[in-house]
Amino acid sequence: MPSYSPPIRDTRFILDNVLGLERYANLPGFENAGPDIVDAVLSEGGRFAAEVLFPLNQSGDEEGCTRHDDGSVTTPKGFKDAYGQFVAGGWTTLSGPTEYGGQGLPHVISTAFEEYLISSNMAFGMYNGLTMGATAAILVKGSDEQKAKYVPNMIAGTWSGTMNLTEPQCGTDLGLIRTKAEPQGDGSYKISGTKIFISAGEHDLTENIIHLVLAKVTGAPDNVKGISLFIVPKFMVNEDGSLGARNGVSCGSIEHKMGIHANSTCVMNYDEATGYLVGEENKGLAAMFIMMNAARLGVGLQGLGIGEVAYQNAVAYAKDRRQGRALTGPADPDAKADTLMVHPDVRRMLMEGRALNEGLRALCLWGALQVDLSHKAQTEEERQAADDLISLLTPVIKGYGTDMGYQIATASQQVYGGHGYIREWGMEQYVRDARIAQIYEGTNGVQAMDLVGRKLGKDGGRAIQAFFKLVGEAVAEGKANPKLADIAARLEKANGELQAATMWLMQNGLTNPNNAGAAAVPYLHIMGIVAVGLMWLKLATAAQALVDAGQGDAAFNEAKLITARFFAERIMPDAGSLRRKLEGGAEALMALPVEAF
Amino acid sequence: MPSYSPPIRDTRFILDNVLGLERYANLPGFENAGPDIVDAVLSEGGRFAAEVLFPLNQSGDEEGCTRHDDGSVTTPKGFKDAYGQFVAGGWTTLSGPTEYGGQGLPHVISTAFEEYLISSNMAFGMYNGLTMGATAAILVKGSDEQKAKYVPNMIAGTWSGTMNLTEPQCGTDLGLIRTKAEPQGDGSYKISGTKIFISAGEHDLTENIIHLVLAKVTGAPDNVKGISLFIVPKFMVNEDGSLGARNGVSCGSIEHKMGIHANSTCVMNYDEATGYLVGEENKGLAAMFIMMNAARLGVGLQGLGIGEVAYQNAVAYAKDRRQGRALTGPADPDAKADTLMVHPDVRRMLMEGRALNEGLRALCLWGALQVDLSHKAQTEEERQAADDLISLLTPVIKGYGTDMGYQIATASQQVYGGHGYIREWGMEQYVRDARIAQIYEGTNGVQAMDLVGRKLGKDGGRAIQAFFKLVGEAVAEGKANPKLADIAARLEKANGELQAATMWLMQNGLTNPNNAGAAAVPYLHIMGIVAVGLMWLKLATAAQALVDAGQGDAAFNEAKLITARFFAERIMPDAGSLRRKLEGGAEALMALPVEAF
Repeated sequence: MPSYSPPIRDTRFILDNVLGLERYANLPGFENAGPDIVDAVLSEGGRFAAEVLFPLNQSGDEEGCTRHDDGSVTTPKGFKDAYGQFVAGGWTTLSGPTEYGGQGLPHVISTAFEEYLISSNMAFGMYNGLTMGATAAILVKGSDEQKAKYVPNMIAGTWSGTMNLTEPQCGTDLGLIRTKAEPQGDGSYKISGTKIFISAGEHDLTENIIHLVLAKVTGAPDNVKGISLFIVPKFMVNEDGSLGARNGVSCGSIEHKMGIHANSTCVMNYDEATGYLVGEENKGLAAMFIMMNAARLGVGLQGLGIGEVAYQNAVAYAKDRRQGRALTGPADPDAKADTLMVHPDVRRMLMEGRALNEGLRALCLWGALQVDLSHKAQTEEERQAADDLISLLTPVIKGYGTDMGYQIATASQQVYGGHGYIREWGMEQYVRDARIAQIYEGTNGVQAMDLVGRKLGKDGGRAIQAFFKLVGEAVAEGKANPKLADIAARLEKANGELQAATMWLMQNGLTNPNNAGAAAVPYLHIMGIVAVGLMWLKLATAAQALVDAGQGDAAFNEAKLITARFFAERIMPDAGSLRRKLEGGAEALMALPVEAF
Repeated sequence: MPSYSPPIRDTRFILDNVLGLERYANLPGFENAGPDIVDAVLSEGGRFAAEVLFPLNQSGDEEGCTRHDDGSVTTPKGFKDAYGQFVAGGWTTLSGPTEYGGQGLPHVISTAFEEYLISSNMAFGMYNGLTMGATAAILVKGSDEQKAKYVPNMIAGTWSGTMNLTEPQCGTDLGLIRTKAEPQGDGSYKISGTKIFISAGEHDLTENIIHLVLAKVTGAPDNVKGISLFIVPKFMVNEDGSLGARNGVSCGSIEHKMGIHANSTCVMNYDEATGYLVGEENKGLAAMFIMMNAARLGVGLQGLGIGEVAYQNAVAYAKDRRQGRALTGPADPDAKADTLMVHPDVRRMLMEGRALNEGLRALCLWGALQVDLSHKAQTEEERQAADDLISLLTPVIKGYGTDMGYQIATASQQVYGGHGYIREWGMEQYVRDARIAQIYEGTNGVQAMDLVGRKLGKDGGRAIQAFFKLVGEAVAEGKANPKLADIAARLEKANGELQAATMWLMQNGLTNPNNAGAAAVPYLHIMGIVAVGLMWLKLATAAQALVDAGQGDAAFNEAKLITARFFAERIMPDAGSLRRKLEGGAEALMALPVEAF
């Protein structure tokens, strides 16, 4: 049976020694995020995840969700009770604004907790994740009345939220939406249409479900410029906040999926359901992107969350399972065989998981801090700089994070040999669960197009220039320290590949846009390597400073330095081959006529 | 719903234009493999696979196998009937020796058919695959009496076979086997113990099941030198060939797995079951390797088989699904959106699948031809040369072939976006099914150790030198032709990486064996790239020759040249980064103390 232990010490090392959270204590929200609060969130949150949610992960996968004839959906055994505890413990409120009942903590803190939530039970965590995305959209684009009416219960977790974009004929290309909204003259609309792949669309965990729905108002342009966003509550909400009649929205069926079985993925039918416009008519896409960007960072975190729990179990198995002998001679002559830990190729898989997880954790927390700073930093310049960086790196965190999450889950399963393929050992579930994160909230190919097509050139390339500056400064500092010079030099080389690839894109992507499309995914991966490489240089710098000062746990610090070296030697070299592939351009991809396939 | 069409034309191109099968018409078995016979096998076999087996693939996955209280196992609905047709059609007999009722066709022909079998229904194909492996072991190591008693029914398919190696405490490290064999003085043994992960261990498809079981004879050394191989029939076989009493072997349970649900994976309990020694006592490992080597090539073919059917469906979906517009402007202005085929990143995924599948097909068929030549070539020198090459490349075909199969299945699923995650579309099954091929018959890490630890240095490196010569000759020939010079030059570069990596291994693997272990998987992947690259140079050479001669279908030949270019530009560059990783050595992998994990 798998196990899970929240990596609190690693989280703390990043918060304290890499991000230096105490430097921001003067910012709103951070004043409440002192060491004691952070300790409490991480230790209590980690305990809740490990002790309450993790035991429901395999059984939830096995049982899945059940739709009944009346359209209601039951979550797996234990979920309702666990969700009740989750709400009672206030875990839904961490980073919600205080004026709506939230604790107002920085996102960087709630993100740290959310990793544990995902590791322990990704399907469970999604119910909350969707609610947070929906809440964010209402907070930014909704009216004061809408905020007052819906947000407090959503932050409290007694109501949940959903995002309704996809339709049978319409995935990435939202211009194809057919769901209609007919104005009723009283400020409300009648929403009709079918939405598919609606995560948490119907379930038994909350008293109400607040659907955020993209639809076209009667007469609006039949393309992306005619999309509006609506609030469609499952139960109407009376003036006094009590629940009224059932709205005309129902779950038509639930999907049978590869994984995340314990999250209900619904076909939602809107049959003249009453909806309320969020923001302006025909401006729905912008509102949706608020949800999407928050959600994409959350999905990137899913890559890490599954990668971490898969890695932990692979380590436990490798320490326990005895098979074969060390190539250098028996490590444990008294036993009939050595543990798997003696085999270099097993170590390779474990170290890849470790290096990617720790690096991605630093990147996700650094990214969450940029989100905080983009709202709360003291100067407009600082806020803009943070916003530039997180806008640029959101597709990277989502795309690279989830591609790596799947890779780690697969490699961790591989460590188990044949047992990894058997359900009861739990490893194959991680592979199945990790897989969706590469697909939803925009496939990773779509993330890559967002990066090269939208983010790179924005504001004259201001964000990418800032990123190069960040890496360049860290490299220069690292090279000045003999203990870090090798890692810094390798990061410099990988960053050189990224710069050359960027230059190639500028020169070739405009003359033939297909070149940009053909380069997009390799480019995103190079940037992922450099971004995680930057984090590893920061992690190593922090560890080396402690070593030099004779502070902290020597073994812990040394492990950071060894893992940084592994990342530099064994993962960074991919940047070179990715650049060579990218520079091949679009021709070999597009040359074959469609009919020749 | 997925579809499948056997790629007969591509198979024929390889057999006729790349391997030049007619050159071998003078060899035993090949005389019956004229164009008409090959046509009949491929077209009729392909039809059977597509029309009878493929329709059972999804339902078989959904239903799985059922074990009953009496230990019997029922295969999914339709399997028994399909197996009956499979046997009646003579599809089990293709390459079996004529003296035991086989058709005596070359392996290269039966391998071509087996690809179709796997693509249409991998779980079904395994019942036959295991029987072929078991038959091979009896044919090489069994007594004449054993051959006469078991082989005809196994080739006919009325009896099936299994391989029993693994035990709960013993996977790769066969020295840990605990199953016991007690001599009975009459030439038979009593076999007792528990075997796990026994594919096709119990089922309802055949009248009898012939288990090949590794066990230790009482008093034998308690390590790999004390392992013997036994035949343990499910039903005893009387002198007249009729079936006698039930033997003391039974299925204790079946495993719930990630995929290949329609193949029964059994825990087999041996309780003083009567067994018969195959070959000599304590020489069981050598006999087992005969099965293993045949099986490993078959597993490599599974990578291709799943890759091919996944790719075909991704193409069909990409041609049908309309979403977004071409970056270069609407390709189909009358429609509301273009098909996915216009998007370079979708093309990238499709072309990767195409280039890997076609290259792996050539490699698998070339490998099967080497197996034939190793037995049937006219001179001992030719037989040895063929045996050298296939011994060297067996772990590469298994390891690289299945790693790529999983990658293609995953990328093909990705083309579907959200629909790829939904069971009814069939794509997620390919990912789940492909996954096992990286694990069983020796994990791909074990394949890599076989390659660097055993195959590379064998006979003073004769095989790898022969391989380098083969590549070098093809490169020299290719560079002389301006139309092929670029592909040849890129292959030369990749081969240079392989040579440098080989040199590094010679210099560093002996001084510290952990360096060899740490290098093994990247090394295997470089060799996979070079081996498939060699095949692409051969494919391109054949296509270019037809173009130059104005022969064949111009579009077909052109597609080969474009796909060859894609492989060279977009896949070969990985050889460089893999070499850089490998040259990092073992230190960063092994530096972390076990307790620091």
